[in-house]
Amino acid sequence: MSKEKKQYNFFCEIKGAKSIDRSQIIPFKDGRWRGIKSIAYKTEKGNWSLIERFPLFKSKWAKFEVRYFEIAPGGASSLEYHLHVHVVICIKGKGKIRIGKRWRNINYLDIAYIAPNEVHQLTNPFDEPFGFLCIVDSERDKPVELPF
Amino acid sequence: MSKEKKQYNFFCEIKGAKSIDRSQIIPFKDGRWRGIKSIAYKTEKGNWSLIERFPLFKSKWAKFEVRYFEIAPGGASSLEYHLHVHVVICIKGKGKIRIGKRWRNINYLDIAYIAPNEVHQLTNPFDEPFGFLCIVDSERDKPVELPF
Repeated sequence: MSKEKKQYNFFCEIKGAKSIDRSQIIPFKDGRWRGIKSIAYKTEKGNWSLIERFPLFKSKWAKFEVRYFEIAPGGASSLEYHLHVHVVICIKGKGKIRIGKRWRNINYLDIAYIAPNEVHQLTNPFDEPFGFLCIVDSERDKPVELPF
Repeated sequence: MSKEKKQYNFFCEIKGAKSIDRSQIIPFKDGRWRGIKSIAYKTEKGNWSLIERFPLFKSKWAKFEVRYFEIAPGGASSLEYHLHVHVVICIKGKGKIRIGKRWRNINYLDIAYIAPNEVHQLTNPFDEPFGFLCIVDSERDKPVELPF
């Protein structure tokens, strides 16, 4: 079995994301979506800080999930890699993203695509919250976290 | 073979969406994403009008696609249903969405989830463009368009 195949034997599953099965509208107001509370960014401690995760959408009828993350000033996501890809869309403030060894700015509605097994991290060195949508496959491997 | 299975024998594929394989940032400026041009909303004529489609993301590494649609004032998407689900996130202006027989408003960052085989349509009866992200499975059935 290849290394890539092996990675897929793990599911990266965070408790708290409800499955949505019936059509509905989830209204957005005052910076949050109705009925969607933040859950733990990860279930284990790591090299991340000041980051909240909001599970916006998952369903047994779809092969993807939509999450919203918000990083407070000074915070960061994990430095990590995994086989599954990320599509990140900035919808609040701005931030920095490391892709491989390179750091780039990410501004309002910029899209970042993180390819399989690319080392990456999102940080907020600015004064305002940095919020972004992150779309992933529902079935995905567990991230490998790196020190920094 | 069930009706649902049969529907999945069709792929809903619009030419023009490039596969993204390497990590990258797609910058947003002046209401558009760099390098992403609008393509036909559908390849066949129908009961839709004044709507543009921008294929933001597809990849052989992901089981989903991200598209952006913009409906000019007075325009509409098709009235249709299909087995695959839609996750719609309003990111520009506002619009109306029909889900089943009910019309609802959709405002900035509201999320609409359209369940399998739910009849739906998005329209813009307002004075400003109405733009929304729409996330779908990569493998999906062809919509069935209804008259209205």
